Amino acid sequence: MYRPGRHFLQIPGPTNVPDRILRAIDRPTIDHRGPEFAELGKACLEGMKTVYQTRNPVLIYPASGTGGWDAALTNTLSPDDKVLAFDTGQFAALWAKAARNLGLNVDFVESDWRAGIDIGKLGERLGGDRNHEIKAVLVVHSETSTGVANDIPAVRRAIDDAKHPALLMVDTVSSLAAMDYRHDEWGVDVAIGGSQKGLMLPPGLGFNAVSQKALAASKTAKMPRSFFRWDDMLEQNANGFFPYTPATNLLFGLRESLEMLAEEGLPNVFCRHQRFAEATRRAVATWGLEIVPLDAARCSSALTAVLVPDGFNEAAVRAVMLQKFNLSLGAGLGKLAGRVFRIGHLGSLNELMLAGTLCGVEMGLELAGVPHRKGGVQAALAYLTEQAR
Amino acid sequence: MYRPGRHFLQIPGPTNVPDRILRAIDRPTIDHRGPEFAELGKACLEGMKTVYQTRNPVLIYPASGTGGWDAALTNTLSPDDKVLAFDTGQFAALWAKAARNLGLNVDFVESDWRAGIDIGKLGERLGGDRNHEIKAVLVVHSETSTGVANDIPAVRRAIDDAKHPALLMVDTVSSLAAMDYRHDEWGVDVAIGGSQKGLMLPPGLGFNAVSQKALAASKTAKMPRSFFRWDDMLEQNANGFFPYTPATNLLFGLRESLEMLAEEGLPNVFCRHQRFAEATRRAVATWGLEIVPLDAARCSSALTAVLVPDGFNEAAVRAVMLQKFNLSLGAGLGKLAGRVFRIGHLGSLNELMLAGTLCGVEMGLELAGVPHRKGGVQAALAYLTEQAR
Amino acid sequence: MYRPGRHFLQIPGPTNVPDRILRAIDRPTIDHRGPEFAELGKACLEGMKTVYQTRNPVLIYPASGTGGWDAALTNTLSPDDKVLAFDTGQFAALWAKAARNLGLNVDFVESDWRAGIDIGKLGERLGGDRNHEIKAVLVVHSETSTGVANDIPAVRRAIDDAKHPALLMVDTVSSLAAMDYRHDEWGVDVAIGGSQKGLMLPPGLGFNAVSQKALAASKTAKMPRSFFRWDDMLEQNANGFFPYTPATNLLFGLRESLEMLAEEGLPNVFCRHQRFAEATRRAVATWGLEIVPLDAARCSSALTAVLVPDGFNEAAVRAVMLQKFNLSLGAGLGKLAGRVFRIGHLGSLNELMLAGTLCGVEMGLELAGVPHRKGGVQAALAYLTEQAR
Amino acid sequence: MYRPGRHFLQIPGPTNVPDRILRAIDRPTIDHRGPEFAELGKACLEGMKTVYQTRNPVLIYPASGTGGWDAALTNTLSPDDKVLAFDTGQFAALWAKAARNLGLNVDFVESDWRAGIDIGKLGERLGGDRNHEIKAVLVVHSETSTGVANDIPAVRRAIDDAKHPALLMVDTVSSLAAMDYRHDEWGVDVAIGGSQKGLMLPPGLGFNAVSQKALAASKTAKMPRSFFRWDDMLEQNANGFFPYTPATNLLFGLRESLEMLAEEGLPNVFCRHQRFAEATRRAVATWGLEIVPLDAARCSSALTAVLVPDGFNEAAVRAVMLQKFNLSLGAGLGKLAGRVFRIGHLGSLNELMLAGTLCGVEMGLELAGVPHRKGGVQAALAYLTEQAR
Repeated sequence: MYRPGRHFLQIPGPTNVPDRILRAIDRPTIDHRGPEFAELGKACLEGMKTVYQTRNPVLIYPASGTGGWDAALTNTLSPDDKVLAFDTGQFAALWAKAARNLGLNVDFVESDWRAGIDIGKLGERLGGDRNHEIKAVLVVHSETSTGVANDIPAVRRAIDDAKHPALLMVDTVSSLAAMDYRHDEWGVDVAIGGSQKGLMLPPGLGFNAVSQKALAASKTAKMPRSFFRWDDMLEQNANGFFPYTPATNLLFGLRESLEMLAEEGLPNVFCRHQRFAEATRRAVATWGLEIVPLDAARCSSALTAVLVPDGFNEAAVRAVMLQKFNLSLGAGLGKLAGRVFRIGHLGSLNELMLAGTLCGVEMGLELAGVPHRKGGVQAALAYLTEQAR
Repeated sequence: MYRPGRHFLQIPGPTNVPDRILRAIDRPTIDHRGPEFAELGKACLEGMKTVYQTRNPVLIYPASGTGGWDAALTNTLSPDDKVLAFDTGQFAALWAKAARNLGLNVDFVESDWRAGIDIGKLGERLGGDRNHEIKAVLVVHSETSTGVANDIPAVRRAIDDAKHPALLMVDTVSSLAAMDYRHDEWGVDVAIGGSQKGLMLPPGLGFNAVSQKALAASKTAKMPRSFFRWDDMLEQNANGFFPYTPATNLLFGLRESLEMLAEEGLPNVFCRHQRFAEATRRAVATWGLEIVPLDAARCSSALTAVLVPDGFNEAAVRAVMLQKFNLSLGAGLGKLAGRVFRIGHLGSLNELMLAGTLCGVEMGLELAGVPHRKGGVQAALAYLTEQAR
Repeated sequence: MYRPGRHFLQIPGPTNVPDRILRAIDRPTIDHRGPEFAELGKACLEGMKTVYQTRNPVLIYPASGTGGWDAALTNTLSPDDKVLAFDTGQFAALWAKAARNLGLNVDFVESDWRAGIDIGKLGERLGGDRNHEIKAVLVVHSETSTGVANDIPAVRRAIDDAKHPALLMVDTVSSLAAMDYRHDEWGVDVAIGGSQKGLMLPPGLGFNAVSQKALAASKTAKMPRSFFRWDDMLEQNANGFFPYTPATNLLFGLRESLEMLAEEGLPNVFCRHQRFAEATRRAVATWGLEIVPLDAARCSSALTAVLVPDGFNEAAVRAVMLQKFNLSLGAGLGKLAGRVFRIGHLGSLNELMLAGTLCGVEMGLELAGVPHRKGGVQAALAYLTEQAR
Repeated sequence: MYRPGRHFLQIPGPTNVPDRILRAIDRPTIDHRGPEFAELGKACLEGMKTVYQTRNPVLIYPASGTGGWDAALTNTLSPDDKVLAFDTGQFAALWAKAARNLGLNVDFVESDWRAGIDIGKLGERLGGDRNHEIKAVLVVHSETSTGVANDIPAVRRAIDDAKHPALLMVDTVSSLAAMDYRHDEWGVDVAIGGSQKGLMLPPGLGFNAVSQKALAASKTAKMPRSFFRWDDMLEQNANGFFPYTPATNLLFGLRESLEMLAEEGLPNVFCRHQRFAEATRRAVATWGLEIVPLDAARCSSALTAVLVPDGFNEAAVRAVMLQKFNLSLGAGLGKLAGRVFRIGHLGSLNELMLAGTLCGVEMGLELAGVPHRKGGVQAALAYLTEQAR
């Protein structure tokens, strides 16, 4: 049934896929063992290094970002290994669950979802681990359920300060190509990503960026693994190929995405995301609503999670926005279900799309009867205008 | 060079082509003499009758709407015939020029571009034409350069009141599928349309809706014509075909467009356009700017033409909006060049796209230094919210 | 209803539109008055000069090739002017009819459809025209109904030998970008083309390539014209724009087509078409069927028209091929209706597509009961193999 | 660099993706938690049951078919479990390797790649397994490296005859939607599939069809698993959703594929594949070349693997075909590398595409200097013509 105009897909991923990328995907599939594919494969593999700001390999799986969790854990660890994780949000929790499912021993540290990782607690935990039983520390860069961004360099420093050999694994699913992420400089060992966020692609590709230390660990890691094996993948990647049939058409899209990011320039991409996040927060503040992150310095640029007042269910509020204004926002997840809606402002987005989104939220709040002050949009426009000078 | 997000194409046509239509066009061309084509042709020819609210044939040309002017004039008139037209805007003027180029004798009545056709003057002119030298009256329904809508039923009544046999020809280029247009009920003899406005298609198709009286006139009309001949076209159309190669892929798009309009329902389409026009006018009024139409009752639902204050050039204002916010508005045309920008709000548009557009205008006015009151967007949102209840 | 695999569209136009072009067309329409459009317009206008091998302007209309006939005639001639044309095929006949419809005085010379223009007769006609009443000579380069190619340089010589000032107009609809056509070198004054043949686009664009002599003629030509006026068009084209809304999305496709032709190289394009035409003729000869052209040196590279034996109707033969093998061939046209089917082998075609087509014809002849020798495909393959060494 | 015409992608998968499917994929990604997605999810999940001819659930992973191996094994088995597999081809071998990588104890029975599974040996093995240590039997339905089809009902009978409780797992990657496969009737416990073969999609989706017995086994299976867990998947699938972001755009394509298969009718699809396989074998036999399968009754309908004569390397032969005729065939794999090329004839294919392919092979053999008799194409055409009556 036709609804006029475009849907506003403002969940924190999948994000709006630009026409250039959709059209790139809309091409006949090619022989994944032929010379034309080799060029495609190399362009994607090289380009992903740029996005991850790394000189080490990036692995590309025909899988969702979730599959990247499996890959990271099974390639580097052994059964019953202890890993340290923090209950900082729904995706942190799901990753910890994945680790348990895979047979790891997860020390899941209670945390405040609104605050993110407590670096002090992390240091304590590591300091207390005299025998270095902890083999990996799992951290989510931008927690998609809360909009809190964890400070990866600070995590790294804590590990270094404790002189602890644990691998540092970072989920970059909603931060990659939206927020500055420096794999090598920050000393991350394995980063996990997906295609459907800052990379502006449909879902279906999962990534692992690695370090030399992680690669070394994979030589002795004993967890069973087949589909997600790094070794077979890296061997074939050397020539631009993959050990099994890759998601060719999504790779067509990835190559286009990498070109687009290069055209805009990664620093500009990051600034744009910061600008839109700030504009959104100003709107929310003007409405008199509260965002989930307690610390303004730890807000993700990818999304803003907004608390609805007591007595309201975010699901009902979002339903109004979808029905009346063809606007999709993210639901509250896990323990925030019913209490939070999430505005995605990452990916292929510009000022007017963001403005339209905020207009939809402001009108939706009104229609849903959520008490709020007017003027949120106005505040966002004032900021965006100033920034555009 | 990649610019993030989507362009806001808010000129009064070509309008935003929905993905469904673009994808329909993105299909292998078929044999225009084969059975599959016959079905396509029939669906398009029948569907266009619905849009024109007529039982008479609608002719579909592989041409722009401008070509429809040629078709209307050359099929019904003879060299040196007198036609009556009114200087009510740039497109009225261009149509009159086309008539002169084709060898007709145009009585071009001076008019106020901000007021549209003076029905009284029309009556006088026809009343004074005792010998019925005037063979046709040319009227633009929605004048795309001014945003003034002429009252077609009133024009018809004036002709009837004068008992004048002249053909009534109406340019529906920017009104078709955006504003209620009733070809048969209103007694129009030839209507001219194009694909790139309310029909949401790329440009490249021109239309003529006709009456039995117009068809009769075409039997004796002596103007030379070949490409635009109705007779060859109607003969082939009877079986769903065309006398020469039609613009097949645009017809794929037209069939899709007709289905989409049927899904939304034409009355809903018209209401939506009225709603967006009213929201836009409220924004403009709040900004303290003036619109071109002097009579609120004669505003087009397709676009709103806004006067910039003295001392400002609309071209500079629009350039700011394009550069800073990826927003295209229509330029001032003809005698309004430099003085007017035009906001298109027709075609595949929804509340949030309109809101984003108005946000872009409000921010652009600020950046371009055009004096205005804030709150235009706010006023539009208030109206749209009320309407959405 | 899904039919597996791809349709074989082997009519002599519209031709198979390559994916690259379809995807280029499948892009949001842009503002036809904005800076991005200007680049598009210039690229198309310049590129068309290369294809026409001319330094003079090429006009691009949102119209079919048929519209190009109107444009050529109305811009250069005056009412009742005499033009010389030859009854060499269906399209020659339709063009002559168009000229009559437009009010010209056509001397339509009886000719043999299987032989093309009789250069001797042309010389006589011109020689006998002492008062230079003939203002234009109309010739079809590749006659799409017969597959006969006329010798344009010989026509030019005949006109020059007669020291006759008539304009030379050439229909290049099915030859452009399929056969070598040298507008300036051959001294043609107006060439007419369309998008849906060698240019590999969907139908919807018509062309006029002109000479300085033709441009000069247009200053004094008195035929009424509006939509097809060269002067308005050339004025706007100077900046990459058009006087009215152009068929933007087809221009996206045209730019892509021009790039593709440049990548392959026009000489290679012409050789490829010759090769495929020869392979087709060898298949037909082996089948023991007759082609329409009597003179092997005058065969078009764009298509091959094949006579069916007495007692058979080509429509029935083609219907079998369409139904059983999803293959569309061209029908017999005009006086060849029922007697000829036409194999299009122009545009985006390669050896295996041609081979598949010929296989379909061979199997179709068998199923339709048309007496023929086996081995046509084999003969074509032998030739193609030899050529591929 | 533009190569005219279409590439002939005749590897045994990925297969030619029809335009309808590519265009379905080329749509804006939607919210994977919204109501529109639920309909998509349900349509895909239900439709896959039809294709698998099962009433039990089919799981759809954002992964390649290879991932389906992991899913099948890890959901049903426990570490060190014994599984029985047969060295019948490269994919059988890779699957066995995957099982070993995942920590299973593989009894890999030596076999003849040209003969497929020896049912007698299977019976012996099972009969000798008194303690029922064998927990699963792994069989490839259509071995993509050899073109041999194993007889799944016979395998089932052997297991039943031995009264053995082992799970029967079948790789249907290249048979699904190309050859008749009856999951429930044949009593298969887990079937593995991928999107890029008979389903005519790009790669990126993996499938598991299950039985109640397999589901029961999954309750007690102890192999670590997270991404590929059935339980989370089935829970969410109940409402049309997925536990993590699915490959939405490929699901758009899958829905379209399922509709196309329903339009053609699965029995017609299977017959068509048989017909094309037989035509191919007749061509090969006429050329005097040998196919890999020793038993004519055990040929796959999806592909034909052809042995090149001693002294020739298939890679060189294929390179000629690719370079000269834009034709991709499958390489020899594993122990057949260098000795075999594989003609894929599955998916969206029709008579003329197959004919074009065989023409390419025949011409390629000639150019590569491979000794062969002429007339292979002719033999295929004779058969196809007969079948088309």
